[in-house]
Formats: sequence, C-alpha cells, structure tokens
Amino acid sequence: MADRAGFGDRLVEAVRASTPLCVGVDPSSALLGSWGLDDSADGVERMGRTVVEAVVGTAAAIKPQVAYFERHGTRGYAALEAVIAAAREAGILVVADAKRGDIDATMTAYGEAWLSDASPLAVDALTVSAYLGLAAMEQVMKMASGSGRGLFAVVASSNPEGRSLQEARTAAGQRVEEELLAELSARNEAEVAATGRGLGSFGAVVGATRTAGSLPLGGLHGPFLVPGVGAQGATANDVGALFSRCPEGSVLVNASRSILAAGPSAAEVARAARELGDELRSALP
Amino acid sequence: MADRAGFGDRLVEAVRASTPLCVGVDPSSALLGSWGLDDSADGVERMGRTVVEAVVGTAAAIKPQVAYFERHGTRGYAALEAVIAAAREAGILVVADAKRGDIDATMTAYGEAWLSDASPLAVDALTVSAYLGLAAMEQVMKMASGSGRGLFAVVASSNPEGRSLQEARTAAGQRVEEELLAELSARNEAEVAATGRGLGSFGAVVGATRTAGSLPLGGLHGPFLVPGVGAQGATANDVGALFSRCPEGSVLVNASRSILAAGPSAAEVARAARELGDELRSALP
Repeated sequence: MADRAGFGDRLVEAVRASTPLCVGVDPSSALLGSWGLDDSADGVERMGRTVVEAVVGTAAAIKPQVAYFERHGTRGYAALEAVIAAAREAGILVVADAKRGDIDATMTAYGEAWLSDASPLAVDALTVSAYLGLAAMEQVMKMASGSGRGLFAVVASSNPEGRSLQEARTAAGQRVEEELLAELSARNEAEVAATGRGLGSFGAVVGATRTAGSLPLGGLHGPFLVPGVGAQGATANDVGALFSRCPEGSVLVNASRSILAAGPSAAEVARAARELGDELRSALP
Repeated sequence: MADRAGFGDRLVEAVRASTPLCVGVDPSSALLGSWGLDDSADGVERMGRTVVEAVVGTAAAIKPQVAYFERHGTRGYAALEAVIAAAREAGILVVADAKRGDIDATMTAYGEAWLSDASPLAVDALTVSAYLGLAAMEQVMKMASGSGRGLFAVVASSNPEGRSLQEARTAAGQRVEEELLAELSARNEAEVAATGRGLGSFGAVVGATRTAGSLPLGGLHGPFLVPGVGAQGATANDVGALFSRCPEGSVLVNASRSILAAGPSAAEVARAARELGDELRSALP
C-alpha cells in the first residue's frame, strides 16, 4: 500500500493521457427518458455503462452522482457497483459524488465503504462535505492517502444558495471557504513532504462560477474538482482564468447534462466529450 | 397526501406514547463483534431487527446510521431496507441518519430516495447537511411536508471539530448555526400557518453537549434531534436544561452505544432503553 501512487499524481497522469474532463453520470428521470431508458436501476446502469464506454480515453474520470442511484434503493446501489466495476476495468478514474460528512467514527465507516480495497463501492475519490469539520475526517484522510485514493471536500459550491455559509467569517477572520482550503493545503503539504508525491490526495470542490482571485487556489498542492461548466453556465475559458496558477493536470472539470444530452448514442456522447475535453485542455494549465 | 399528519405532530404523538428516546442503530465492527455477530450485511440486519424488537413501545424512534450499512455496499442497503420495513411494521418511527446535502436537483433525487412512498428506503425523517445552503432544499422540504415526513438539518453538532464553521459569522452578523436555526424556524412557522399543524416538519440537530442559552431553541416550532447523550458525555439533565423552553414531545434524544452495549440480549437492550427513556421523560418538557 505504502508505495502505491497517490491520487493526486494518478489524476495528473490520467489528465495527461486524456483531457481534464470528468463526465458526470447523473441519470435523472428526465435524462433517462430522453435516452429512451426506463426510470429504473436497469436504466441507470445502462446509462452508466454507456458513458464509460463512450468517454474512456477522452475524459480522465467519471463522476457518478450517487443520489440518482440511491433513488432506486438497493437495486440502484447494485447498478452503481456495476458501473464502478466497468470503469475500473476500462481504466478510467471514478469519483463518487456522495458528499459524505459526519463525526469521526461515522466518517471512518464511510471511508471503509468508499476507500477500502475490499469494498464493492471502492472508488478513486469521494466527495465530502465538512459542516461537522474537516478535522473529523483525520482517519479517512489517512485511509485515502494510504490506499492511493483521494477526497474532494466541497469548498466553494457552484450554486448561489451556499454563499452565505461559505463566506461566513470564522473566529480567525477567514471565510469558511478560505479556512477549509487552507486546511486542505496544509494536509497536502504534509503528505507531499512525507511521501515524495508530486501532488497531495486532498482535493477541493470549487465551482467554475466563482470569481478569479477570491481564493488562493494556486496554493492547494492538491487536485480540484470543478462543477458548473456547460449547463450551469461557465465556459472553458472561465475555468482557465480561475485555475491559471494551478499545476498542470491538477484540475478536473465536471460536465454532465451538456455531455449526456448528446446520448443515447455512445458515439455522440464520445463526440461531445472529445469536443469539451479538447477545449478544456487548451484552456487549462 | 394533503391531510396526512405532519412529521412534527407524529413525533409528539410517538413521544407521548413512549419516551423521547431515539435508539441509534450503529452496527460498527466493534459492536457487531461484542454481540457475537459477523461483520457482514447479515450481522447488521440482525442487530437492526433486534433493536426494533427490543425498543418498540419504549423509544419513539430508531435512527439507523447509514454509514454502517453502506460499509457493506449493496447488501448493506438491502439490510437497511429490511430494518426500515421491520420498524414500519412495528410502528416505530425511523430517522435515517444520512446527512445528505447537495444542490437542488440532486437534493430532489435524495428526496425521492428517502421521502417518497414508492421508495424502499422511505423513512419518517432524514438528516441533512446544509454546507450548500438550506435554500437548495426547497423542493425536498415540500416533499417532506406533503408526505407527512420530516427533515433534521445539522445545526450545532455534538463534536468539537464542527465549532469553527458552525460559529462563523455570516454577512448579516449571525453565527451559521443561528442563521440555519432561524431559517428552519421561519419555514416551520409558514408550514404551521398554512396547514394548522401543531409543530412543523423541519427539525434541527443540536448536540446535547452544547451550552444552554447560546441558541434560541424555544423558537423553532419544529422538532429537535439530539445526539451526545450517554457515551458522548451529556446527561438527561443536560438535555432537560438545554431544551427547557421547547414544546412537549418535540425533542428526540438519540443514544446508541450506551444502549447497544447492553446487547446482544433483546431483553437487556429493552431494559437499557426503558431506563434512559424514563429518565429523559422526567428531564424534558
């Protein structure tokens, strides 16, 4: 385990070998309908497998939005396990968008679910939400780093409803989003120093709809996951401006509806992914 | 649907008919071992069913911690569905502790998973986490209220790591926890006014380890879910002092390890639950 490559470095390599694109697998009722698929666990699995097949080599990662699998209960989780297994076989990274967040013992259980070799839900990275504090995730961070996996903590979300909380000032005078970014940065620096890895395992979710200059993004020493491109309004150039000071290959840009709308043809999904992927590669460091 | 009783009123009734106790179903590896059960989905289901059988009539609710089910992937979710079904049949309320939180479309998918009659995961209430803003949960709040179900948003957690974020000051000068409580309160007031219900459906998670007087808890017009009693250090009297101004039956106090440690005998779990339940009934309004 100790000499497994870290998630940050694995991501950089995947971006170099393809593009900075991450394709969101969001099998909503509406999208399933537009693909001619049933709103069922089978339909969800079918869409997920098609996306994997279509975007391997063009996107660095897929990001299943777990909520759309959970809509179908246990059978939805079976579909998620199948899509994760298909992605692993195809050699594309998987980021589970589950935004887990709880006290330490509970977080450790989530780590065992998503970041442990033995789990059928094991993925390359998991999104987490730190309302209960990033320090409650100490053990999960160790599990991630030790197994070559990563975390993406939501720092600055792409939706306007999150602004009030994320811009609130802590006792130290920093905004919540700044403090969280600084905590992630410190942990990445420590990991990089201890392991000799190039980039740390502890990523930040920062919406592409944020304004450049409002957060010191260049100092994270870890990966970014960036929602908000395409259907949510931001362009590849917006992302390029926002992350201009970040290391090459460290920024993973998620798009979902704008890619999936090209389906159900895998060839059309592939074309849409290639187009946006190339655009992002030109726009990003 | 429109004339189904609301979650707040259903909770008050359940507390009156039993006690303010909610028994946390946290089938950790350690607890399963101490019960002589396998650390497997079967072991998890067995523990959950035993808790339901033991505490019906004594506790108002059970609270499965979803992380401990998720550790077992799809089979763990099947165990969770079985425990939820057993609780429904036994007539005890179920609060799914999943702390879901995301942007609006995704939250709606979570609502469909946990708060919709058709879902195998349908429960009486779901815990949510508002790092992305409570306003992103508009649609889910409608789904909850309309189906007689509830939400519990984490306001002030029982762990110290959450303090910095939860006490950060928003632009309006309030602490994050105060602003969230005020938002929940406003929504409960609107719901109560529109429906004639006694108590609203939008609850707050407030740790029993918090200090009385630091939050205007008496004005929520909705239910509370209170972790931190027993193994986490707070007593029934601490809870009584903290919630002294809240309506009768509106406070649901969770205990897990201190009750489950009495197992694997259902009779011993029942005895531990009865003892703490009675103590809480005396201490609370």
